[in-house]
Amino acid sequence: MSYERGNVARMAGYVYGEQPAGSDIVKLNTNENPYPPSPTVAEALARFDVATLRRYPPATADDLRGVLAGRLGIEPGNVVATNGGDEGLRLAITTFVDPHATLGLAEPSYSLYPVLAAVQDCTVTKVPLDAEWRPPGDLARRLNAAGARLTCLVNPHAPSGVLLDGETIARIANELDGVLLVDEAYVDFADPEREHDLAPLIRRHDNLLLLRTLSKGYSLAGLRVGFLIGDVGLIQPIRVKTRDSFNVGTLAQSVAIAALSDPDHAKRSWRAIRDERARLADALRALGWFVPESQANFVLARKPGAADVYRSLRERGIFVRYFDRPRLADCLRITVGRDDENDKLLDAIVAIAADQRCDG
Amino acid sequence: MSYERGNVARMAGYVYGEQPAGSDIVKLNTNENPYPPSPTVAEALARFDVATLRRYPPATADDLRGVLAGRLGIEPGNVVATNGGDEGLRLAITTFVDPHATLGLAEPSYSLYPVLAAVQDCTVTKVPLDAEWRPPGDLARRLNAAGARLTCLVNPHAPSGVLLDGETIARIANELDGVLLVDEAYVDFADPEREHDLAPLIRRHDNLLLLRTLSKGYSLAGLRVGFLIGDVGLIQPIRVKTRDSFNVGTLAQSVAIAALSDPDHAKRSWRAIRDERARLADALRALGWFVPESQANFVLARKPGAADVYRSLRERGIFVRYFDRPRLADCLRITVGRDDENDKLLDAIVAIAADQRCDG
Repeated sequence: MSYERGNVARMAGYVYGEQPAGSDIVKLNTNENPYPPSPTVAEALARFDVATLRRYPPATADDLRGVLAGRLGIEPGNVVATNGGDEGLRLAITTFVDPHATLGLAEPSYSLYPVLAAVQDCTVTKVPLDAEWRPPGDLARRLNAAGARLTCLVNPHAPSGVLLDGETIARIANELDGVLLVDEAYVDFADPEREHDLAPLIRRHDNLLLLRTLSKGYSLAGLRVGFLIGDVGLIQPIRVKTRDSFNVGTLAQSVAIAALSDPDHAKRSWRAIRDERARLADALRALGWFVPESQANFVLARKPGAADVYRSLRERGIFVRYFDRPRLADCLRITVGRDDENDKLLDAIVAIAADQRCDG
Repeated sequence: MSYERGNVARMAGYVYGEQPAGSDIVKLNTNENPYPPSPTVAEALARFDVATLRRYPPATADDLRGVLAGRLGIEPGNVVATNGGDEGLRLAITTFVDPHATLGLAEPSYSLYPVLAAVQDCTVTKVPLDAEWRPPGDLARRLNAAGARLTCLVNPHAPSGVLLDGETIARIANELDGVLLVDEAYVDFADPEREHDLAPLIRRHDNLLLLRTLSKGYSLAGLRVGFLIGDVGLIQPIRVKTRDSFNVGTLAQSVAIAALSDPDHAKRSWRAIRDERARLADALRALGWFVPESQANFVLARKPGAADVYRSLRERGIFVRYFDRPRLADCLRITVGRDDENDKLLDAIVAIAADQRCDG
């Protein structure tokens, strides 16, 4: 017999991007940083005292939170460390959205959100983004009408890469009755000229929660360290009540602190990715793809027949992400890789187009 | 204003044992293994390729699950790896207990269980253990009557250390309508002569879930690696649906595999702890404490005035666990430490008793 809860029995799990192995593979499907983490990470592992592992980790990750708070110009009480960004999303839903209550989402968006909602057995209200992947002006009104207790916006947006500025986020936070979680998984890749920094907004908006992660910006997707920042009224119940007491291990805390001690290393990768992002987007446009301006470490490229290109790329060992969903069926989401990887991708797209012309 | 869910606003968080720092401290309050992990752990860190951290971890921890399944004589499909044992407990509740449905517990028991129930907003039905810390014969009948969807039993029991044998567990699993989770956090410390092994039972009981952890037996509380084993019908929804996709990081998976490759190192610590457990229990009994036979890495010592002894020990830098709760108010839960730590504890208890006689 089945012992699962009804909502769990009915739901499907999250479908993560393929994780193919092999040195010949060009893997541009899961938005990983193509550059390795800082040498300070290897140094931290080399000097790590393994005897300390017999003890429980620092439960509230005070040293790590102190570093993060100092970096962001906020207080440690405004930060809670999480087992990757995914845990931050789950904890926000656990803490703020009752079962059968409403989670607000933009559509399309990160496909994990509805899965987490299904686990919590809450209702999802989706508001379609406009043609430029931006929320409509009445987003908050519609989500308030639906009773949304929490609204998740990924910014820069996934899968388009479009960035909403601080003014827009502040307006939405003001208008929403519930909590606004801005998932900033990709924010490190925004152009510095934009001077985009939402952290100061948490002082003025007691319903604004920001999610950050070391996965992309610090090349540490394998480590599982993310964090939520916000007003103490949002952060404290997560840190004290709903979080597993020892959710971030000792090694993860030490490695995270080591990586954060070398921001210049991370920033060099951000700059390289921005440069490659511009080159990749221009090259794809020259090949007839429509590519909105991305502020993330991926681009969304649209062209009729994208699904065929996805399959042909895959046959050549080049993995990009394809979503068989409304508005995305003609799109590929392509992670910005190293220059040699992007070259291989572009060469393959040219070759596939030539094959199609010959077939046609 | 407060955005927390009502159940979250009403609940208190889990109170974990103090984590005092300092080389003079004798820390016998959180059941950590007093011996360091295997040298294979340091070797695994030394040869770990930090460049792999830029990638997401193996999502379903296949290599780790393969090692565990081989060790336990079960299939990989019977295992799911978790971010420490705590996550396994939370995931069992998330997967099997609807909000407002019932979680069954023995009383007293691990104080985290009711906290996790409060987060899920489910009801708790507690059945008192008998005078020897064993469940009454009608445990299942009472929990079935309460509609328990999941029942958690920690075995060896915490805080008494009493071990229920496989026959008893099989009977309870047979009788329960819902899932039986046996929390085996301390099972590695059971006397080998007991030949205690519940893993084969999962083939005959599709409602039996076993929770194990590397925290205690493998001296890796800081790493956060635990696992659930059970029938595929119980494990699959957790692995595929309710678990965060990347809940165990790459480093944690590698270190866990390394530790498991040296079972002899772990077994030496188990033997040393069993020997010290016997010595500590005998010495406490000789000092007038009542100490039930423990199969865990701690003992529960009862004597009137235990709370005063707890405070006096604390003043001397010796930390044990005191629970100000019914049936435990005259008890200390003392983790079995190294011989020198146990000596300091026993000397201090003798000295405190002498002080009390002088005061009296």
